[in-house]
Amino acid sequence: MALARLARTGLRRSGGAIGNRANEREMCFEGVSTHKYSSPSIENVAAEGNFPFLSSMRTTDQMNFWSRGIKTTPQYQFAQAERIVEESDSEYESPRYPTLEATKPGEKPRVVVLGTGWAACRFLKGLDTKIYDVVCISPRNHMVFTPLLASTCVGTLEFRSVAEPVGQIQSALAKDPNSYFYLASCTGVDTDKHEVYCETVGNVGLPYEPYRFKVAYDKLVIAAGAEPLTFGIKGVKEHAFFLREVNHAQEIRKKLLLNLMLSENPGISEEEKERLLHCVVIGGGPTGVEFSGELSDFIMRDVKDRYAHVKNYIRVTLIEASEILSSFDVGLRQYATKHLTKSGVRLVRGVVKEVHPKKLVLSDESEVPYGLLVWSTGVGPSEFVKSLNLPKSQGGRIGIDEWLRVPCIEDVFAIGDCAGFLEQTGRPVLPALAQVAEREGKYLVELFNKIGKQNGGKAFSAKDVPLGEPFVYKHLGSMASVGRYKALVDLRQSKDAKGVSLAGFVSWLIWRSAYLTRVISWRNRFYVAVNWATTLVFGRDNSRIG
Amino acid sequence: MALARLARTGLRRSGGAIGNRANEREMCFEGVSTHKYSSPSIENVAAEGNFPFLSSMRTTDQMNFWSRGIKTTPQYQFAQAERIVEESDSEYESPRYPTLEATKPGEKPRVVVLGTGWAACRFLKGLDTKIYDVVCISPRNHMVFTPLLASTCVGTLEFRSVAEPVGQIQSALAKDPNSYFYLASCTGVDTDKHEVYCETVGNVGLPYEPYRFKVAYDKLVIAAGAEPLTFGIKGVKEHAFFLREVNHAQEIRKKLLLNLMLSENPGISEEEKERLLHCVVIGGGPTGVEFSGELSDFIMRDVKDRYAHVKNYIRVTLIEASEILSSFDVGLRQYATKHLTKSGVRLVRGVVKEVHPKKLVLSDESEVPYGLLVWSTGVGPSEFVKSLNLPKSQGGRIGIDEWLRVPCIEDVFAIGDCAGFLEQTGRPVLPALAQVAEREGKYLVELFNKIGKQNGGKAFSAKDVPLGEPFVYKHLGSMASVGRYKALVDLRQSKDAKGVSLAGFVSWLIWRSAYLTRVISWRNRFYVAVNWATTLVFGRDNSRIG
Repeated sequence: MALARLARTGLRRSGGAIGNRANEREMCFEGVSTHKYSSPSIENVAAEGNFPFLSSMRTTDQMNFWSRGIKTTPQYQFAQAERIVEESDSEYESPRYPTLEATKPGEKPRVVVLGTGWAACRFLKGLDTKIYDVVCISPRNHMVFTPLLASTCVGTLEFRSVAEPVGQIQSALAKDPNSYFYLASCTGVDTDKHEVYCETVGNVGLPYEPYRFKVAYDKLVIAAGAEPLTFGIKGVKEHAFFLREVNHAQEIRKKLLLNLMLSENPGISEEEKERLLHCVVIGGGPTGVEFSGELSDFIMRDVKDRYAHVKNYIRVTLIEASEILSSFDVGLRQYATKHLTKSGVRLVRGVVKEVHPKKLVLSDESEVPYGLLVWSTGVGPSEFVKSLNLPKSQGGRIGIDEWLRVPCIEDVFAIGDCAGFLEQTGRPVLPALAQVAEREGKYLVELFNKIGKQNGGKAFSAKDVPLGEPFVYKHLGSMASVGRYKALVDLRQSKDAKGVSLAGFVSWLIWRSAYLTRVISWRNRFYVAVNWATTLVFGRDNSRIG
Repeated sequence: MALARLARTGLRRSGGAIGNRANEREMCFEGVSTHKYSSPSIENVAAEGNFPFLSSMRTTDQMNFWSRGIKTTPQYQFAQAERIVEESDSEYESPRYPTLEATKPGEKPRVVVLGTGWAACRFLKGLDTKIYDVVCISPRNHMVFTPLLASTCVGTLEFRSVAEPVGQIQSALAKDPNSYFYLASCTGVDTDKHEVYCETVGNVGLPYEPYRFKVAYDKLVIAAGAEPLTFGIKGVKEHAFFLREVNHAQEIRKKLLLNLMLSENPGISEEEKERLLHCVVIGGGPTGVEFSGELSDFIMRDVKDRYAHVKNYIRVTLIEASEILSSFDVGLRQYATKHLTKSGVRLVRGVVKEVHPKKLVLSDESEVPYGLLVWSTGVGPSEFVKSLNLPKSQGGRIGIDEWLRVPCIEDVFAIGDCAGFLEQTGRPVLPALAQVAEREGKYLVELFNKIGKQNGGKAFSAKDVPLGEPFVYKHLGSMASVGRYKALVDLRQSKDAKGVSLAGFVSWLIWRSAYLTRVISWRNRFYVAVNWATTLVFGRDNSRIG
């Protein structure tokens, strides 16, 4: 049985696990006990019939939205999975699924990376492919430059300018004979057999037969991202738009343009026009603020000319439970509040109770009719991450130690929004920021290249490799655009530290150039610059495609 | 009853109808009898219960694909429509639907344009909005630069570069107080009451309540385009992609990239890889040839590097019943055949009998497995056009006279792919080409501006306005790109005439620059040029979005 094996492995390996940490054994068990991750005896497992492999394949939420890297796959057939596990254990592990088999001695070790977000792509970019073969598994074949996503919704930037194909980031995926990119969701991990289970994704709306397969790994990097938090509020998933993927931005754009056009139809009442053109943003973090700023820019500059009949009906409301941009310096917060209000964004303090198709209800029972609802209240663990039987950090992320390893589970690492330091490390769980993810990816790939050079790349072979310095995160500052050529730059290294804070046009220039230099490829750097220039000269594009 | 009224109108107006044509009465009736469009007596109509208004609202095909301008709306509720017609006749014409009412004396006359294709947009662009108010009704808010659509499927051009928002083409639609663009499908026309019936469109895949309304017109321009011809072949609509809209190109692109990625999955058999990567194009007209050329460019230049694992499996087959580019000069045809073959496109002469999800069957019973099937065998009348109770030309288009009027039906004009000369004009039905549509739009808008200046803009008021010279189409030549910096330019004015024919790199330069200058806005001209330059430098973009 898989859990049995996992438990055995845990017991067997906890003593001699890789790394130079004295109290690793202690951590391993602390991690387990603190987070209700128990190591039952073999007998218990057999009796209770708990298979971690199965639980990691649990049918997840029916909503088919994407986490940053990994889509949860509700279609998973429990029965079939069960049969396979049992057979693979009892009947000489017959290969039921098509498999990318484990690497043989003499072959390069294989790193499997789950996800194509900031963390995964930074890792992929730096991997020494002379040492490793690499397999990347993700339901999307590109990285999204998330900080610029809000700008694509209103046509300031083109969608393609903020997406970077993963094959461009790491060309080995496209070219090397034993490296691959698989467009698929990971549905389960067997850490003992060193295998991941995958299922292909199809085109939305088209009939599609999922194709399932297994991939063996020497090292596994889980960088599967997180999912938008809805706090279990009724109606959010059904009626609100998130803003994490390019297709989210496309949907928001289509809805916005559709509502602008529908409100022009003959016989639409004043009240309905106001509803259709009421854009409500929930959450006052950088994404919510930037989207509100872009929307008000769009309204002030483009709606006036292009939808003159309805220009007086369109409004933007930003609803936040506490205060906007809470991680920023107080001066910058005040600047943002003042600027947004001046740009016509109504700031409302409130907590959403439930969401209906055409209105939302706040906790004080007041009703807010809306035409477009964008939800950006942060992220939490995805169904996939929840389903994994691994130690968890506070907040339900995959628990990691200071070297970004999942303790007790050999050869498994986790980075980005899906990972968090275990409590025993004495470190806080880092915020779900691109900056953090990127820095973790960079650290881990250097660690991998080091391990690889010392022949620790293969499965179970890094036990004696010294890992060197642990990962330390140093915050370089935060930025947010608030629209109309204004942005905030907060260069303090933590919330309470002192440092430089800037707001206004110069910040906006810094914001633009910082992002422009961080866009990965020259192609997209060029396109982002061209998009910005064209928007300046010609205004935003408002064709509604598809 | 509406048909009764239409019949009456026909009888009443046939004598004194607008224009300077001596034998108009004759034409009107000839048109009617030749095309089985009978003018029954009032008694007959009442007895048979035929309402043209109803028939024009007939429930159409369940496939929801777009014609160039007007989407057919299968959702139409027959019962309701019937009730409204009957009530509107019997109960003082109570306004059941929200209505944009008929213009009043002293107000500008209102031109209603159905569609946003080449013909409609050329018309809209030239309309003198000091004379007319204009209402444009179409399920898409942009014009598509169709000749460049094939290039967007493989990422040579961005989707937005070939789409032009209609509000940019005619700014009155966005700004003038009594001009509007409605994102809606036209479901019926009552030529007697001078009204069109509309239904809004929603976002594909989202729940949506259609909203119905009426728009009164002084003059009606039907430029609703055509639909892809499938010749009733089983499975075409279900399994093949058309290439007429931006969203078609998006779907083709997604499918192509999906198949490229699926074929890399572990355990895929050789046979299945070959099937997935077999791109089949049906129809050897300019669209089919250009798409095949773009595909082979994409394969030669981009697949080699970016999908190195499967590069040897991808193939393109072009199937044509007679010969490719049949309207072109024989030398150019030979050049194209040679060039395509050299680029790896397999040319097959064959007739498709039926289409299955993964293979198609030719009339000689041979089977062709495919992964991507693109269907471009020309266009025919849309369900909307078929449903209109108007005189029809050969081939089922809306019958028009030399001034692009629908004879006997006052104030109704038809242009573009949905219109064709009536047999009695002694003129051939013109081919469904952008060039023809654009020329018709240009002619008609000049006619409208002339009529308007002589106070003939209002309904029933152009009877005595001299129309001047009839429309004459002069073919300026044809162009087609065959890929790899090669194109054909055929400057003969008809199929049998003598003239200049060019093929090769110079033609390709002519092709590019001709199209670049014909793209409507400077914004898109700039973007097309930028796209071409970037593709040259960086290769094609292959992120799969959505």
